Parts: sequence; C-alpha cells; structure tokens
Amino acid sequence: MPQPLSLHPDRLFPSDGKTRSVAKRLYAEVAALPIISPHGHTDPEWWATDAPFGNAAELLLHPDHYVFRMLYSQGVPLEALGIGNPDADPRESWRLFAERYHLFRGTPSRMWLDWVFAENFGIDVLLGAETSDYYFNEITDKLATDAFRPRALFERYNIEVIATTENPLDDLRHHRAIRESGWNGRVITAYRPDPVVDPEFEGFLDNLKTLSDLTGEDCFSWRGYLAAHRKRRAFFSAMGATSTDHGHPTARTADLSPVEAEALFARVTKANVSAEDTELFRAQMLTEMAGMSVEDGLVMQLHPGVYRNHNSAVFDRFGRDKGADIPLPCEYVHALRPLLSKYGNNPDFSFIVFTLDETSYARELAPLAGHYPAMKLGPAWWFNDSPEGMRRFREMTTETAGFYNTVGFNDDTRAFLSIPARHDVARRMDCSWLAQLVVEHRIEEWEAAELAVDLSYNLAKAAYKL
Amino acid sequence: MPQPLSLHPDRLFPSDGKTRSVAKRLYAEVAALPIISPHGHTDPEWWATDAPFGNAAELLLHPDHYVFRMLYSQGVPLEALGIGNPDADPRESWRLFAERYHLFRGTPSRMWLDWVFAENFGIDVLLGAETSDYYFNEITDKLATDAFRPRALFERYNIEVIATTENPLDDLRHHRAIRESGWNGRVITAYRPDPVVDPEFEGFLDNLKTLSDLTGEDCFSWRGYLAAHRKRRAFFSAMGATSTDHGHPTARTADLSPVEAEALFARVTKANVSAEDTELFRAQMLTEMAGMSVEDGLVMQLHPGVYRNHNSAVFDRFGRDKGADIPLPCEYVHALRPLLSKYGNNPDFSFIVFTLDETSYARELAPLAGHYPAMKLGPAWWFNDSPEGMRRFREMTTETAGFYNTVGFNDDTRAFLSIPARHDVARRMDCSWLAQLVVEHRIEEWEAAELAVDLSYNLAKAAYKL
Amino acid sequence: MPQPLSLHPDRLFPSDGKTRSVAKRLYAEVAALPIISPHGHTDPEWWATDAPFGNAAELLLHPDHYVFRMLYSQGVPLEALGIGNPDADPRESWRLFAERYHLFRGTPSRMWLDWVFAENFGIDVLLGAETSDYYFNEITDKLATDAFRPRALFERYNIEVIATTENPLDDLRHHRAIRESGWNGRVITAYRPDPVVDPEFEGFLDNLKTLSDLTGEDCFSWRGYLAAHRKRRAFFSAMGATSTDHGHPTARTADLSPVEAEALFARVTKANVSAEDTELFRAQMLTEMAGMSVEDGLVMQLHPGVYRNHNSAVFDRFGRDKGADIPLPCEYVHALRPLLSKYGNNPDFSFIVFTLDETSYARELAPLAGHYPAMKLGPAWWFNDSPEGMRRFREMTTETAGFYNTVGFNDDTRAFLSIPARHDVARRMDCSWLAQLVVEHRIEEWEAAELAVDLSYNLAKAAYKL
Repeated sequence: MPQPLSLHPDRLFPSDGKTRSVAKRLYAEVAALPIISPHGHTDPEWWATDAPFGNAAELLLHPDHYVFRMLYSQGVPLEALGIGNPDADPRESWRLFAERYHLFRGTPSRMWLDWVFAENFGIDVLLGAETSDYYFNEITDKLATDAFRPRALFERYNIEVIATTENPLDDLRHHRAIRESGWNGRVITAYRPDPVVDPEFEGFLDNLKTLSDLTGEDCFSWRGYLAAHRKRRAFFSAMGATSTDHGHPTARTADLSPVEAEALFARVTKANVSAEDTELFRAQMLTEMAGMSVEDGLVMQLHPGVYRNHNSAVFDRFGRDKGADIPLPCEYVHALRPLLSKYGNNPDFSFIVFTLDETSYARELAPLAGHYPAMKLGPAWWFNDSPEGMRRFREMTTETAGFYNTVGFNDDTRAFLSIPARHDVARRMDCSWLAQLVVEHRIEEWEAAELAVDLSYNLAKAAYKL
Repeated sequence: MPQPLSLHPDRLFPSDGKTRSVAKRLYAEVAALPIISPHGHTDPEWWATDAPFGNAAELLLHPDHYVFRMLYSQGVPLEALGIGNPDADPRESWRLFAERYHLFRGTPSRMWLDWVFAENFGIDVLLGAETSDYYFNEITDKLATDAFRPRALFERYNIEVIATTENPLDDLRHHRAIRESGWNGRVITAYRPDPVVDPEFEGFLDNLKTLSDLTGEDCFSWRGYLAAHRKRRAFFSAMGATSTDHGHPTARTADLSPVEAEALFARVTKANVSAEDTELFRAQMLTEMAGMSVEDGLVMQLHPGVYRNHNSAVFDRFGRDKGADIPLPCEYVHALRPLLSKYGNNPDFSFIVFTLDETSYARELAPLAGHYPAMKLGPAWWFNDSPEGMRRFREMTTETAGFYNTVGFNDDTRAFLSIPARHDVARRMDCSWLAQLVVEHRIEEWEAAELAVDLSYNLAKAAYKL
Repeated sequence: MPQPLSLHPDRLFPSDGKTRSVAKRLYAEVAALPIISPHGHTDPEWWATDAPFGNAAELLLHPDHYVFRMLYSQGVPLEALGIGNPDADPRESWRLFAERYHLFRGTPSRMWLDWVFAENFGIDVLLGAETSDYYFNEITDKLATDAFRPRALFERYNIEVIATTENPLDDLRHHRAIRESGWNGRVITAYRPDPVVDPEFEGFLDNLKTLSDLTGEDCFSWRGYLAAHRKRRAFFSAMGATSTDHGHPTARTADLSPVEAEALFARVTKANVSAEDTELFRAQMLTEMAGMSVEDGLVMQLHPGVYRNHNSAVFDRFGRDKGADIPLPCEYVHALRPLLSKYGNNPDFSFIVFTLDETSYARELAPLAGHYPAMKLGPAWWFNDSPEGMRRFREMTTETAGFYNTVGFNDDTRAFLSIPARHDVARRMDCSWLAQLVVEHRIEEWEAAELAVDLSYNLAKAAYKL
C-alpha cells in the first residue's frame, strides 16, 4: 500500500500552540494575496505560445537542478535522468527519481513537489517506486489538457506580475508576442547583461559584436559600448522591465575615472585579459550600471558570490546550470564602497543586494541596508530559499535593518509549477517569525498583521516599482 | 484613536509555557539587582553639572545613531532631524521620527524606546503621527523637572557603578567635579587611547604633542611615549578607572623587539606612513598596553573589526558616529597570538575580547577564552546587543567557553535613558536561555538561579574589578 | 547536603510538549541500537591487554582536554592537575576539578561526565567540593573490579565496532594482539599518515627514514614513498581498517603533474622547506591519497582547519593535545576543487569532509556534498560535537544536502567512558530535530522513524563500509 499524500494546513507553523495560533491568524490574511514575482527565470515562450507542457520528467525533473543534483549526488547518472540525452525514456527517468524520493526528506524540494503533486495534480498518494507509473501517467495526461496550459496555470496561480530574465542580445520576441496577443497576464522582462559585461562569459567578444549589430553602436569603443547598454535598457524598459540583474563572482565595485575606464575596456576587449582586469571591469560595470539606473529608473539587483560550473567533467559534458554552482564567501563592506560612495545616497537609485553567504547578513548587509538610502536587502536566495534559510534571514537581519529595508520574496526559479508553493513557504515562514515576535511581546498582533501583508505583497511591489 | 502602549511583563520570554514559567522565576530573582555598567559612552558632564536635559529630540533622537540611521536609510535627511543643523525645529524633527515609528518594528531600538516612554515618562499611547506633539510636550516638560535630572535618574535606575570612556588627552575635569561634589553616585572613567595610538586617527601627531605637554614626556621618543601612557594610565586609575579600551580595525597584535618597536615608532611619527606600518603599530601597541595592564592591573578591553565612516558623503558633512560604521570579518586566532603568547598565561593580566563578527564566537573566541587564563569573552556588542544577538551569543559560546569565561553585560551606549532597558533585555534573554537549559534538563533550576545572578551582576563586577 | 545527581529521561528533548512526545517515540526506537564508532582515538592497548584502568584522575581528568582546558582557563595550573607531573597526588588533582565543577554548567562535558558518574558508576550525588573524596574513592574502587575492565565496558556499551587511529609507523601490535586473543570485540584501525605527509610534523624526515625501514622502500624517492604508502595502507586494511584520516591546517588540495609532484617531493625532503611548498605538498598528498582510495577502497576522511598548539608556553612545557588547538576559518570551494575534479565523480571513491568552521555548512559543504557523488558530510566535529553544535549542523545542512549525504555520528574521542554518552546525545539531538520536522509537517512520523535508525546506525555502517 502506498503512503498517503496530503498537505497539512498547519505546515511550517511553530510547534508551540500559542505561537501557532497567531501564525495561523496572520497567514489567513495573506494566503490568498496575488503573487508578485519580481525576479525569476521562467521562459516567456510558455506564455507567448501557450503550448502544453510535455511529460512529467520534462517538466518537473529536467529543468530543476535542485532535484537532479540530489539524485546525481547519490550516484544516478545525469544521462539516465534524460539530461543531455534525448534517448532516455522519460518514464524510466521518472522512475529513478520516484524510487529515490526519500532522499528529499527534509528538503524544500520535497515541500514544493508535494504541493505540485497534491494541489496542482490532485494526487493523494506519496511518490515512490510503486506509484511511479501512476504519477507519470497522471501528470502527463493532465498536462495535455487545457487547464494545464501555461496561461491557465498563470491565472490559476493568481500571478499579478512575473518577471523573466533576458540578456541584452535577446530580441524579446516572446515578450512582444505576449503583449500583442491580447492576453492580459502581466509578464515582464529584466535586463541581465552578464554575457556582455563579464569578459569571462562564453563568447564575450562575439556577444559584443552582436550587440553592435543590434544597436548600431560600435561596442568595441567605450562610448559606443555604454551607448549600446543605454539603448538596450530603454528597449527592455519599453517591454516592461523595471529592473536589471547582475550575477558576479564577487560583490566588488569600482569607480575609475573615465580615462581609466576607457583604457580598461580597451584591455578587456583584446586577447589575454588578466584576471585582475576581468574582475576590475566587472566591478567598474556595476558602478556604470548604477549610474544608468539613476538615469532610467531601473532597479538594480546584485547576485554575487558563486563559483559557477565547479564540476568540470559535468560542465564539459552537460554545460551550464547542472547543479555544480557552489556559493563562496563574499565580502561586501569594502567591495560595495565605490558604488555606494557614488550613488548610495542618491534618492533616484534603488539597489537590491543578495547573498549566498549568510555570515554577511548580520555583520555586513543589514548594517549597510540599515544606513544607505539606496540599498535594500534581497530575500534569502537559492540554497537559502528554504524554511531554515528564511528563518535565519529574519533572525539575522530584522534587528538591524528592520523589515522595511527588505523587499519581500523572490522565487527566482525556472520551475514554474513550484512558484505558488515557494511563495506559500515564504508567507508561512514570515508569519511564523512574526508570530514569534508577537508571542514574545516584541510587536503587537495588529502590527504583525500589517507586516504580513507588507512582506507578502506590498514591499515587493514598491521595491521593484511594479 | 492612537494605539495603546504598555510593556508586557513577560516580554522576551520563550513562548513555550513551561519554559516561560522557569524564565519568569529566574528573572524575578535578578530584575531588581543594581546595574553594573562597566563600559559605555555616557557623558560625565551630566553628573558633574546635573543640568537638566533639553527636549525630546535633543535627548532621544540626536545622540542615538541606531535611531537616526534607520530614518536616514528610509530617505529622511539628517539635517531635517536636526543633526548638524541647529536651525531645525526639534518638534518637527521629532515628528519625522514619530511618523516613521513603524520602521522600528522588530528592532531593539523599539523595545528600548518603548521602555523609556512607558516606564520613564509614564506615556500609555504608542508613538505615531497623531501622538507626536503629545510625546514631544510630555517628554520636554518632564525633562525640565528635578526628577529627570541626571543624578536623579542615576539613582532611580539603581546604578551601582557606571564607567565612561575618555582618551588620554582628557583632563577628566568632570570626573573630578563628580568626586568633589559630595554626591555618592559612582561614575568612573576608562582609558581609551585610540587618538594617540592609531596613526590614522584625526590629528594623531597633534595629539602626541598635547600628550607631551600634559605629561612632561617627549612623546616623539619611544621611551617618552610609553612613559606618558604610564602616567596617564596612573592618572585615570586615580580617577577610578579599572579598565582600558581599544577600538581597532582588526584584532592584530605584534610582539616586536624593543629595537624594532622603536624604529617603527619613529616611522609612524613621520609623514607618509605606510598602511602596513600603521597597522603594525596598532598591533604592537596592543601588546604594549597588555604589558602595562600586567603592571598596573587595569583590565584590557579590545573592540575590533569596524569600518569607520563608510559613507564618505555623510562623514564629510556630519563627521564621525553618524550611523555609517560597518562591521567587518575579523580574524582572531593568528591575530591575537603574539599578545597571548606573551601575556595570555599571566595571572596578573585580564583581557576581554569583543567581536562584531559572530562567526568567530564558536570557531575562535570561545575556544580561545576556554583555554587562556587571561582571556575572557565580552558580551554581544553593538548591532548584536539585541535579543537575537544575545541568544546567538549564548548558543555559540556556552558549550565551549562555559558561562564563567564571559563577563556579564555591557550597555556600551551614550543613550543614557535606555540603560535600564538594555540591562533588562539582557537579563530577560539570559534567563530565557537558562530556562531552556533547565527545561531540556541540561542544568538544574538551582544552578540556573545562581547563574542568573552571576550573569546579571557578579561576573561584571569581578571581571572589571568593580 | 550535597545536591542529588540523576539523569532525566527527557534530557535534550524539545520543551514543547507535542514535539517532545514525538522525540521520545523516535528515541525509543534507537536508544538501544548498537554503537558504531567509525572514527576515534581510543587506545587499542586497552583491549589488547584488558588491564584495569587506574584512578579517577588518571582515567577521567588527564586524557580529556575538554576538562582540563576549562580548569586551566580559570587559573588552575596543569601541573596541579597531574598533567606532565607524576608527583601530583591524584586525589588532590581530582579535588581541584570537583571544587570547580560549576564551571562546566551548560557544556557537553558536564552531560557526558554526569552520564559516566550516574550510569556507569551508579553515583547519585552531584560532584562538588564535599563529594570529591567520595567520588574519587568510589570510582577508583570500581575501576579495580572486573566489571570495569576495558573489554567488559566495551561489551556493556554494546559497541558493534570501534575504530582507533594509528599512523603508518605504528606496528599495530595491539590490534594484532586483539585479533589473536580470541576475544570477539571488533576493534579496527584507521590510516592517519600526517606524520609522514606533513613536512611540519615533528620528526618528519626521521619518520620517512623509519617508513623506509618498515617497508623496504626508499621513502626519499617519490616512487618509493608512494609505494610505501600503498604497502602500509594494505597492511592497515589487513588489520581491519576501512578508512584513512587526514588532519591538515587547511582543506587545500592540488593536482600536480607527476613531474611537478616529484620535484616538490624532492624539495620538501631537503632542509629549509618554504611554507608554500609545505602547504602544496600536503595539498598534493590529499589527492594522491584519494587516488589510492580509489584503488584500495579505503574511505577517505579530511579533518582540516586547526591551529595546533596555539599556546607556545603550554606546548613547550607539556607537548601536544593540551587544549590549545584552535579552529580557523576554512575555505572549501577552491580548496577541494583539484581533488574533486579528479575523483569527485568516481563511483569507487568515498570522501568524508569535516569542518570546525560552521560558516561552511550551508554555504560550501552542503552544496558540494549535495552534488558530488563521492563526497559526504562528516558530522559536527570537536567543539561542535555538542547539543547546540549538532542542532546547527542539521539546520544548516539538511535542506541542501539532505540526510543521505551525511554519515551518522562520530564520537572522535580518547575519553572511552564518555562514548555511550556522546552517542546518546547525538541520538537525542537527531530525534529532536526529526520531531521538529514532524510537528511542523515537513516529514511524516514514519519517515522520521526510518531516518532516526539511519542516522543512529545505518548511515555510519554504510559510509564507512563496516
């Protein structure tokens, strides 16, 4: 007999009865609020074409590196899961996952997936070896129905707005198609220029060439390069973007003189760029982007501190985003000073900083966000986007930065079906934290109720100008 | 209708009923103990002259960087708050604060301020836009009465002893005046030599000149400089000091030969000092100060790891201590070794080490304090002087260093009115932690009761020789 | 009247009633499971000779650096405790400890010792000044009885297997004697080659000489040196070893070409080795050892990040392991990459990584272990082998690495009598964590029950191939 699957209505609430009661009351006020998803990686093509999703493996296994990295860590070859291997039978890939579902006990993936299975697909038995085929059939069948098409799910999920992330070379055709389709779901883009900002990005010089072609600017001259950014940012804005996003190995920023910056640009657009020049150029470009944000009003996001593609064998065989991106220690106080000195006090600038290094929450980021008018703290990110990670985020940032220097929740995912589950986890954890403050008489319950709505909805809308 | 304001008697105690009961019993034994305040930044002039405090903005807003940094982070100009701007109307500055009181939800400032409002001024409505004038009037009026003069508050607060912090150039006239006044409140000084120890301190060379004049020693010779320190330390001791305090960018110490030290001193008292020499001199001076502590018995405190005046625009316009001091990662194991190798086993030396980098609690500081006879752990400091910060301090240090290698609480503040509230928070959090240990059967309740008194009173008195 | 001593059956379980009930049910299933002790530092001579232990001070005080470091930190000279001083009267040493037993309140030592006193020796009064003699007599008398001989205790403790740690120069005579004795207790060795791998180890070159003599290989040639390792590993395997262990100042690994490695070896076997060569050689040897593990199947353990013998005065007078080993910040992402690139995807390799730097749990180690098939996370180690340390370990690693990339518990101690108490603490803390997940509806209770057995028994057995 398979084990039953059901989502407990009190999940994630504190065990103490009194605190749980407060958390439940707070949650009741925010559970049904629309979803604001200001930063993520869903594919705009879904809503442009509204084509049905494929099978269970293709939708839930292949794009979710949380899922396949855990399976890989326990010895399952990526090929067998169908990754980089179109010949794999999706039903058999799914079975490898189903048989090992116990590996996910205690992980957020387990909570998100169970939500998708139970709430979205109406399944009431736990995933496992004996239910693998049932799951595969049930999910694959439902995906073929109209109710499971991308736009239908978007509406069912009560998404008020969702941002995708594109690079400056993208023609945003899907965003254009969505706008021209007459459908009233709000899907916007965000400007992520890493491929034309990071000299170490694959094809950097080719990307500059393409950028030149796209913009009519000479992107091998410093002035032309900056002008091209301004043009593409304006184009992205016109397609709904309200923010930019920057994924860098470190948080380093720089404030070179125009002459120095131009000379540096000349060096990084030639062969044999030094590691120091590469890093310095990324640093300088963060400050340049901040300056453009002051001009055009796009909110600037920084996601630093990741060692990308740590496993070279996996990268060589399967490419990027295969679960081998590993967080690094990340310093912010010295790193951000050049940018903050120039723009940190500017009322026209808005700068949201994330971290994967939780040691910086209480020590560096909360004190910085609790001082500079331009800087806000992004929510717990990536591996920290989990119940314990969210708890630590609040415990380590609230007392110094308060709640109003934070910006609500980001789901930051390409796993579309998990988005409601992720927002739900965030709302539950925030309500749990607020309930603790109430029961410990650190705030009043009416204040917690206001804060719950702010954290679930208002702050994201305001911080991202949505 | 404004919201009511009241302080719940169970605030900060754990939510679990059983644990809360134990915490309440423990707290009942320590709530009324006198305050030992061995380290802080109140102004001795208050007690020397016993002049009434001014208005609400001047007393509660202007000197409290926790308060105005939060307002500044949310876009309120410091000038509008009356900082660096004597023309600002204090009533209107207060209003800017009152209107934004919700920003402080979940912060320790909120707890301290509510205590001051409710307990000290007898106010029973919450601060907000509609109660701003009421608050301003009520506080300003009461400050003009005898019951709110500095000495009356000192006595009302049941302060057994309070230490201020002065630099070697201070003539301690206020301390002398207090002693000569016949008032029996115990206010002592502490020796904080940063202005004559740190070559980067504003006016360092001028400060050495003044020190020479004060002491009759040639402070541009190494011998004379050290002799001047000894003289000033003796003078501070005579004015009640039992401790020294050292605020350095890092915890680095050095143990140079006398010849090397003398040569280094010659270099740092000339123009164009290198960054390495500056840092090395500070490092060497910590060890010199430790040596003098062995001679004269002053307890040595180290407060390292801050990037001072991070926001240059704010510093240029408003000067030091304006909320832009940001903690840094701080290493202790290599850094302290020269000093500890020389004096760490010396029974005549007592060395209290603080940190803003909580990662060092479990990893470095508790293991060091749990081994070296001379070293003790200072309490959670600055941004960490908060309920969550105190909880983490105990969770990360108790198991390795125990309780008896810690030194009780420091309020470390210039916000005089908040001192009882801060000690009260510390006592409540310590009782909560002890209650958890009792309920988890890790200690007995009679042991927790002894510990509660030790943490609230005895340890500070012993560690600081008070 | 002395205070009573008793072990509460609910000790360490969460205070909340509902959660405590779940924890108790889970614990009931694992409390009596046999002990798997795959890594530690007990002395195999105990089981080889089965000679009775000496007196209370000799057994419980002298070998336990947790105990004497705390006493030393509070001013008790090591000589007075009988350390490095055979003339000390053990009864008086014990009294110094007994009089200061309150120093251990809130520490794991207190929990372990109380278990030993109550459970092992049947004592029902608390240790203190007035019970010192009673304790000393009672323990010393019982140690002289057959029931307290090493083998009797081994059996009473229900130890299924215990690993000791020896270096390659050890002839394993005691292990041989145990095997030849006919006694069926399973005591195995582990290969800890630091003395012949770390050029900074005392007597490194002499150790290579001895290794040459032992193996018949020329250990001053690179090939001979590697061949000697292979021979000793094979010998250790034959004597039951299933693992190697490596204690390094950092986690750095390297992957030099054979030519480079040979040249490096030539340099470190000469005089005046540079610090960089020393570190690089240790780094290269980790990768060499990993390669040999692929060949011979020994599980590889890495225990990095300690500053050994920090207190030079104590080291000079008393030698190693005297409580002055202090954890350091430790980086893993760059450090482990050479080794993981070479062997991290190899199904024949098993690599268990430990840390004393808890900041690496969520940031580095859980993401690495949650990706690389070869890598697993070792449990909370050394100072972190405590209730709070274990709680943080699970809170910071579970969500990213899951439970099945961890390896159960290690007691890692030379304090033999405390072994059951340490395993009991680990089981209680794991059950408490699992109970919290159950009550927060993150896993089902039947899953928690399976996990409790896995964490207490199965995972260690599987990970260490026992």
